[in-house]
Amino acid sequence: MRFTITSATSADGVSEEHFTVGQIPGVLWTPGGAAGPRPLVLLGHGGGQHKTAPRVVAGARRYAAERGYAVVAIDAPGHGDRPKTPELEQAFTDLRTRMAAGEPAFALVAGLHTMLAEQAVPDWRAVLDAVTALDHVGAGPVGYLGMSLGCGLGVPLVAAEPRIRAAVLGLFGALGLAEAAARITVPVRFVLQWDDERIPRPEGLALYDAFGSAEKTLSANPGGHGDVPAYETDEALRFFARHLG
Amino acid sequence: MRFTITSATSADGVSEEHFTVGQIPGVLWTPGGAAGPRPLVLLGHGGGQHKTAPRVVAGARRYAAERGYAVVAIDAPGHGDRPKTPELEQAFTDLRTRMAAGEPAFALVAGLHTMLAEQAVPDWRAVLDAVTALDHVGAGPVGYLGMSLGCGLGVPLVAAEPRIRAAVLGLFGALGLAEAAARITVPVRFVLQWDDERIPRPEGLALYDAFGSAEKTLSANPGGHGDVPAYETDEALRFFARHLG
Repeated sequence: MRFTITSATSADGVSEEHFTVGQIPGVLWTPGGAAGPRPLVLLGHGGGQHKTAPRVVAGARRYAAERGYAVVAIDAPGHGDRPKTPELEQAFTDLRTRMAAGEPAFALVAGLHTMLAEQAVPDWRAVLDAVTALDHVGAGPVGYLGMSLGCGLGVPLVAAEPRIRAAVLGLFGALGLAEAAARITVPVRFVLQWDDERIPRPEGLALYDAFGSAEKTLSANPGGHGDVPAYETDEALRFFARHLG
Repeated sequence: MRFTITSATSADGVSEEHFTVGQIPGVLWTPGGAAGPRPLVLLGHGGGQHKTAPRVVAGARRYAAERGYAVVAIDAPGHGDRPKTPELEQAFTDLRTRMAAGEPAFALVAGLHTMLAEQAVPDWRAVLDAVTALDHVGAGPVGYLGMSLGCGLGVPLVAAEPRIRAAVLGLFGALGLAEAAARITVPVRFVLQWDDERIPRPEGLALYDAFGSAEKTLSANPGGHGDVPAYETDEALRFFARHLG
């Protein structure tokens, strides 16, 4: 698919290129003046967010500035600048209604992830083909980082994509993901919030348990879905430094 | 109680002083030529081990050399150079018999820890009084690190001792410890082995759950009781760097 740069800016020594690959809009961050292959981190955003959500951008800039990595984020199907099918609109509406009523929505969200992953996995693989062909990204080692929706789409992606050598995942459960998780054998860091109001604790523990990786760390902290402590960001960076170089 | 140095050596820039505080034998590691107060880490050894077990010494030397900390280890009651009461001899024999027969020994070990903690907690507090009075240790921030037996004795110690500001614990369960764990409010890093053949997984998860600390991280990895990955040693060092300075 055709890789087209739609805009490019640079700030604080990090270059930010907005692009499309076919119909998929994405952003590529690289250190200013980068040339030659380097580790690449794919960032999967959370549900209802998009490729330039503040947490995504902040993370991407750190990987580029502190580690010299290339970083890519894309809009998940039905998110950001991407169209929503009538089927997806309905699923989002059902989910919002359920959550507004305070009803448990985990199973509904898991089903939605399964639906989105059918498109998201080939999307990511096409983007990976395109950006690794660029001179300032190249075919270096690849990592994936995604929580919540980013985990729901990331597990099937990491299971399917042999170029991904390490993954930080979390804030989701085993429902719909256990089989793909069992096929993952690369090092995994799995982040779990002990009092997650959205993900039943046994579901999160079962997903960690399901990974086929010989090297996998479960890192759990107190608090709800949105309360992941800042130090986990540093830990993810060190995890990739260890596994991607 | 009287603090007496029984021998002193120095290697690779780290001073090692063997001492007694009353009847308690211990070792103090400090950076060579240290003067003035500094963070202090108390190292609790594992069951059947002692104050100069290879893992204890290796850890102590890293904290002194890389962080400039003072580090103390003592023999737990009935371990190393300390006498065994007939009651303890019997308990150790029962335990070895049970384990040799491949029987679950967790409850027996938990009971043994409770018995040993009655002596170990006042021992540690007396040693803390003595070493913090030394010019090259001083009354800086104190941390505690102990796995397995070191966790079984560490939980009641950290609960009782307000000078301890952060603790790395792990490889044990809630049985006999939940009440003391609930009284702990300092930051805790809790290490759990996912396939621990000695500690039932729900027991380990329940002990993490029991800690009263607002800041507590559960770090779990695959493998048995003796398979804690090397990177957990680095993580513990960073944890203390964050909390003790």
